[in-house]
Amino acid sequence: MSESKKPLVGIIMGSKSDLETMKEAQKSLEEFGVACEMRVISAHRAPDLLFEYVKAAKGRGFEVLICGAGGAAHLPGVAAAITTLPVIGVPIESKALHGMDSLLSIVQMPGGIPVATVGIGNAKNAGILAARILSIKYPEVATKLKNYADKMAREVKETKI
Amino acid sequence: MSESKKPLVGIIMGSKSDLETMKEAQKSLEEFGVACEMRVISAHRAPDLLFEYVKAAKGRGFEVLICGAGGAAHLPGVAAAITTLPVIGVPIESKALHGMDSLLSIVQMPGGIPVATVGIGNAKNAGILAARILSIKYPEVATKLKNYADKMAREVKETKI
Amino acid sequence: MSESKKPLVGIIMGSKSDLETMKEAQKSLEEFGVACEMRVISAHRAPDLLFEYVKAAKGRGFEVLICGAGGAAHLPGVAAAITTLPVIGVPIESKALHGMDSLLSIVQMPGGIPVATVGIGNAKNAGILAARILSIKYPEVATKLKNYADKMAREVKETKI
Amino acid sequence: MSESKKPLVGIIMGSKSDLETMKEAQKSLEEFGVACEMRVISAHRAPDLLFEYVKAAKGRGFEVLICGAGGAAHLPGVAAAITTLPVIGVPIESKALHGMDSLLSIVQMPGGIPVATVGIGNAKNAGILAARILSIKYPEVATKLKNYADKMAREVKETKI
Amino acid sequence: MSESKKPLVGIIMGSKSDLETMKEAQKSLEEFGVACEMRVISAHRAPDLLFEYVKAAKGRGFEVLICGAGGAAHLPGVAAAITTLPVIGVPIESKALHGMDSLLSIVQMPGGIPVATVGIGNAKNAGILAARILSIKYPEVATKLKNYADKMAREVKETKI
Amino acid sequence: MSESKKPLVGIIMGSKSDLETMKEAQKSLEEFGVACEMRVISAHRAPDLLFEYVKAAKGRGFEVLICGAGGAAHLPGVAAAITTLPVIGVPIESKALHGMDSLLSIVQMPGGIPVATVGIGNAKNAGILAARILSIKYPEVATKLKNYADKMAREVKETKI
Amino acid sequence: MSESKKPLVGIIMGSKSDLETMKEAQKSLEEFGVACEMRVISAHRAPDLLFEYVKAAKGRGFEVLICGAGGAAHLPGVAAAITTLPVIGVPIESKALHGMDSLLSIVQMPGGIPVATVGIGNAKNAGILAARILSIKYPEVATKLKNYADKMAREVKETKI
Amino acid sequence: MSESKKPLVGIIMGSKSDLETMKEAQKSLEEFGVACEMRVISAHRAPDLLFEYVKAAKGRGFEVLICGAGGAAHLPGVAAAITTLPVIGVPIESKALHGMDSLLSIVQMPGGIPVATVGIGNAKNAGILAARILSIKYPEVATKLKNYADKMAREVKETKI
Repeated sequence: MSESKKPLVGIIMGSKSDLETMKEAQKSLEEFGVACEMRVISAHRAPDLLFEYVKAAKGRGFEVLICGAGGAAHLPGVAAAITTLPVIGVPIESKALHGMDSLLSIVQMPGGIPVATVGIGNAKNAGILAARILSIKYPEVATKLKNYADKMAREVKETKI
Repeated sequence: MSESKKPLVGIIMGSKSDLETMKEAQKSLEEFGVACEMRVISAHRAPDLLFEYVKAAKGRGFEVLICGAGGAAHLPGVAAAITTLPVIGVPIESKALHGMDSLLSIVQMPGGIPVATVGIGNAKNAGILAARILSIKYPEVATKLKNYADKMAREVKETKI
Repeated sequence: MSESKKPLVGIIMGSKSDLETMKEAQKSLEEFGVACEMRVISAHRAPDLLFEYVKAAKGRGFEVLICGAGGAAHLPGVAAAITTLPVIGVPIESKALHGMDSLLSIVQMPGGIPVATVGIGNAKNAGILAARILSIKYPEVATKLKNYADKMAREVKETKI
Repeated sequence: MSESKKPLVGIIMGSKSDLETMKEAQKSLEEFGVACEMRVISAHRAPDLLFEYVKAAKGRGFEVLICGAGGAAHLPGVAAAITTLPVIGVPIESKALHGMDSLLSIVQMPGGIPVATVGIGNAKNAGILAARILSIKYPEVATKLKNYADKMAREVKETKI
Repeated sequence: MSESKKPLVGIIMGSKSDLETMKEAQKSLEEFGVACEMRVISAHRAPDLLFEYVKAAKGRGFEVLICGAGGAAHLPGVAAAITTLPVIGVPIESKALHGMDSLLSIVQMPGGIPVATVGIGNAKNAGILAARILSIKYPEVATKLKNYADKMAREVKETKI
Repeated sequence: MSESKKPLVGIIMGSKSDLETMKEAQKSLEEFGVACEMRVISAHRAPDLLFEYVKAAKGRGFEVLICGAGGAAHLPGVAAAITTLPVIGVPIESKALHGMDSLLSIVQMPGGIPVATVGIGNAKNAGILAARILSIKYPEVATKLKNYADKMAREVKETKI
Repeated sequence: MSESKKPLVGIIMGSKSDLETMKEAQKSLEEFGVACEMRVISAHRAPDLLFEYVKAAKGRGFEVLICGAGGAAHLPGVAAAITTLPVIGVPIESKALHGMDSLLSIVQMPGGIPVATVGIGNAKNAGILAARILSIKYPEVATKLKNYADKMAREVKETKI
Repeated sequence: MSESKKPLVGIIMGSKSDLETMKEAQKSLEEFGVACEMRVISAHRAPDLLFEYVKAAKGRGFEVLICGAGGAAHLPGVAAAITTLPVIGVPIESKALHGMDSLLSIVQMPGGIPVATVGIGNAKNAGILAARILSIKYPEVATKLKNYADKMAREVKETKI
């Protein structure tokens, strides 16, 4: 895997308003040298397009999908129903219920179709989780994850208050 | 509309274990002389089949869909994304969270794709709501709804304790 | 049905402060060529007026009622108890509990009297749901709904990020 | 006020299934020598009857109403909208949400129409609260309440474990 | 009862920061010609003072107590344990949990010691509820409550949108 | 400190029905050689007795109080308001809300009066926490706590599945 | 990868009582020909052992860890802090709060240390998610996942009700 | 114990952003003449450092630890698993869920490893609780706690509104 070449991760979000949250996933992936493709495809407003995109994902070389959605957040679960790739779900913080609806709509999937759910609004962790998954196959990602963990620990040690 | 002939309502549920709950919708509809078709089609385990079924629904003469699902309950929302028919969602009571997850997964739909949500496990009301919807077109259903309401009021008046 | 003539939908809200939320329902209906009448009638502060208004609704030609209320939100359920028309409930986002109280007060109706509940504050979807209901009787509304869905899908396809 | 003569308290419940809970209110009232009348009148299934009953309540000599209801529990709030008598609301424990829906539907009333809410399923306390209210007018009830409090304290003091 | 003379209602709050909320109770009571006394007495920071104050309340002529508190809100329940007067509890909206903690701490009292709970932050309704309670003894308060209800209904009828 | 002699910990509970839960605290304390006294004293049904008991606690040689209560659970907070001893609160699992009401009523104390809260129904941990507190003064308790921790770790290591 | 030879997945649980839930993960993995090792190692009762085990995991050839825990469920997060392998968290259904505590304790991880969370009690999905992750490296697992998805869809199509 | 000399309390927080909340604990302790040491050590980003720090705590003379963390807040529980000192947990208010996640992650510890939990964001109470614990050994702290309680009561008595 040479960096920034072929996207290994597809980042999909339900609405353009999710972009500010979801681009943290992209930033995380860049830190680990993983290229990604980012798209707005609503499970509700464009179901056909979502089907096409997710069905083609594996054939196009994607190895992980990251899906962000809010409220009655069906995008990650529907994607996980269409592909057998690992799907990571990011519950976007919703207005009235602060993302509790998004979280439950994503994490409480029925037996047979898992979504790897991260915390509310935590697209950064979705990117890191994708890197952890890819690291089982790409040793250079594993090395970068190790360095990242070491850097976090070092920063904690040096924190002055 | 002659009774019990052409099904006007399609009842779909995510799992066979939802049948006990969902047949209350069928019973309600029978009370108002409305025929229905009942199917198990999981949005997650058989997404293609769901797409086909819901896309064909209007052409086959359905005028209302009732969808029951539990947990991360995507069936009603996905159906509402595929058809422009009115879709009624029944949140099935889930084990750990007692249907709060099902309710939020169904009712909190994004702008553009509404699901007419009833109470947790209340498939009976889904059937009556379908009848109320049909009653704007079929006067005989309106008449039966009026009789039903009168009967409910009468029973209350006669309740002895 | 010629556009903007006879109102087919009555929009009722519990308080004038709900107006900003509820006029989204009106806007939605306009998009589908459906005329509506909008009124503030509190179930709590003017119960007699609500009774009169809802009892007369069907005779005045209304085919769907949309009711918005917040907190201990009784308006939609009480309206549904008085008429057999389909009643759509909009849980208004409340201050302390963010509309969770409104949602549960509206959706958890007892068997016999359904309210078609939409998401918290989602009056736009209430308007679209009313249009979906009317579309089973008025083909021109069905056509507009189809165009609306196509437009949503097209917009998703053209979203650039 | 001579005991057991004229009922001063009306106990209303939404459904006959609430009777087991609500008769605790009656028992409490008996303990304080207050007569009551108990009725099943659903706000949803018999709205006209409820209006009549509550409108007539003050004229018939009632001084407090106790209303029990579950789920989207509108009975206490609607009663409080019709009468200016003090209305006590008892949230009946519901199946899926354990009475949280009932509680919020009763307690979160809008400004202007209060319901004196007690704990979930706590009809006993509704009876005692009615007695406390009546005690400001009827000294013999006040005396019985004092004795009741003394007895509770004495029992605590004598509890052996 | 001549207006503004002897206070019939004691309003107690746990903290001076509750004053902005609680003075709505005072305003309500003024509307019905009921005098009140308002005090800050924390159940936690000054338990002895609370005991003294509440124990003396009946002897001093109070007929209703209104207690507002937030978070782990013990003031209303402790007051209700000390006196047999009717005690109204106002759950003050708390910072982190928005008053859900205050509500449950007040409403879920054990059998034997009821607190008449109103909605979160709804001190206005606490004042009106106190007036309703007093109205069973003071006909002039009943008359004012009737006028208040009529005025609310009239305002609704005249609302233009 | 010689074992089982002078009780250092007072265990108080709101109701005799809490005994089954609370005796786990006693068992825990026995394991660490700490004597305790166990009493039923409701903050609501016997407020005077509670005041006396807690005010006298320090003088009688108690160094920690453990208070268990359910629902609107005021016992631990009221005790903490009366004494400056460390007070541990055990939220008893309540029927309708499963102890969420008990937990919030205990843990969300206002600034100035802390209650050391343990998990819902977890009286065992209340006992161990009391032992941890006493261990800063009594080395023999510290030793027993160390042995207890070692035993737990050993048992985990030996667990076969 | 030849089946059942070297374990690629480590399944860890906080308590032996979690075994009944967690063995569903093992069953899932068997279905996809993935060997695993299952251990009880509490983050709380044996923190040293957990550190050793997780630190050694990658060196021993594990590529995914599945961690199940209930209540204040720290096991998955602590494991994810020690290793850079992908860690899947299973919130065990807890007694009082039905796993809501477990879910939030696992999914709401801070930025930098993700846990791939599945639904409450859904160890089956944890196993399938581990298989999806491994499938990006092991084509035979990918094939088995495809067959599994096809079988699920087929079963839905053949469901008779 | 001479004031401000040897720190008896260690205050640890998961992130520098928790400092604003946690320094209230330090302020409280100063009020009671108790010295403390304050450190940022994340359980997730620097698990080794946390282990070392907490393992050494008792040997270094600490008698109480105060740990603040938010979201999936593991710091207090992990600390309590490593030491037998009393550990006080402060649930930091989180962004989306307002600290409900933090609270449950801290308070719902399994049997055997208690965390003395205070209210959401209530580091002030954590400091006072630490002082109450120390007061069983250091009479001068007990005296200061008594004065503090008297001052609070006096301030309440003098509050004018």
